[in-house]
Amino acid sequence: MSKFEEKTILSQEIFNGKIIKVSVDDVLLPNGETSIRELVKHQGAVAIIAVTKDQRVVMVEQYRKPLEKNLVEVPAGKLEPGEAPEVTAVRELEEETGFTTNQLEYVTSFYTTPGFCDERIYLYYTDKLIPLIEEKALDEDEFLDCETYTMEELDQLVKDERIHDLKTMYALQYLKLRGF
Amino acid sequence: MSKFEEKTILSQEIFNGKIIKVSVDDVLLPNGETSIRELVKHQGAVAIIAVTKDQRVVMVEQYRKPLEKNLVEVPAGKLEPGEAPEVTAVRELEEETGFTTNQLEYVTSFYTTPGFCDERIYLYYTDKLIPLIEEKALDEDEFLDCETYTMEELDQLVKDERIHDLKTMYALQYLKLRGF
Repeated sequence: MSKFEEKTILSQEIFNGKIIKVSVDDVLLPNGETSIRELVKHQGAVAIIAVTKDQRVVMVEQYRKPLEKNLVEVPAGKLEPGEAPEVTAVRELEEETGFTTNQLEYVTSFYTTPGFCDERIYLYYTDKLIPLIEEKALDEDEFLDCETYTMEELDQLVKDERIHDLKTMYALQYLKLRGF
Repeated sequence: MSKFEEKTILSQEIFNGKIIKVSVDDVLLPNGETSIRELVKHQGAVAIIAVTKDQRVVMVEQYRKPLEKNLVEVPAGKLEPGEAPEVTAVRELEEETGFTTNQLEYVTSFYTTPGFCDERIYLYYTDKLIPLIEEKALDEDEFLDCETYTMEELDQLVKDERIHDLKTMYALQYLKLRGF
């Protein structure tokens, strides 16, 4: 048993969607009292830091409905059930950027919002990009632009809040620490 | 209008909780088709990078119900409605660590999971910590340990996946880039 463990007394499913599941759990606290926890379940995702031969970083721009605005982000996508993250990573790279790779380096993984959601993102790096001859289809409800940027341009995008999501901002720090 | 904008046709509230609200929206896609978006609304939060006089970083360890395990994280907490983030930051620092400060530096803000949730975290830095004479109460359903660590110890905690959340991993890279 973990210190501070909160034992589930009752779990009530609120929503079972395509992307998320939501439940409200009654939990037993370490002091013997009870409380409730609102929990979001997510399949997990991958993100890819993709660097071209001429030292530009591949980014995608898309509309993010929760924020009602466009963001520029590292290519990313949700895991399919049972799919190995490195398989997802190559598929998303191909669909979103028109590149593929046969050399993907695992960087790390992280939980995005551990307070209420179990989403875990697996982060990869590649600077061995191969242009695809034929374009791959995006998901039918997915619309995005793909562009490459220098680090100076990326820093400006952060200042302008066009890059404004944590995984992409982490990826840029990672590149700087790697000496990019 | 943003490129790729998705206009809301109908928004259906699924859940209105203490921490999150969930809705399912029918949207009009850029190509004239329709789709649905599962959206989580969150009040937003703050996180604080707190460094002691002897160059140790203040961290809190707590049980994260969505992951069913303990994580070591930078001190953090949710915004109260209408509260300025820097006010929340000092309050959470006091409650979770037993320190206060009169010198808080704004670092940046970021969206944690822009694909399905609008949570925005405001990140602060301080190395001007003042020990509180009297302990402040945590929320009644909150249990945590507060410890300080060297960067070497923090790197080991990341390897051991005891630090495993994105905001804390971002904070550690931030400290390294700052020359910590």
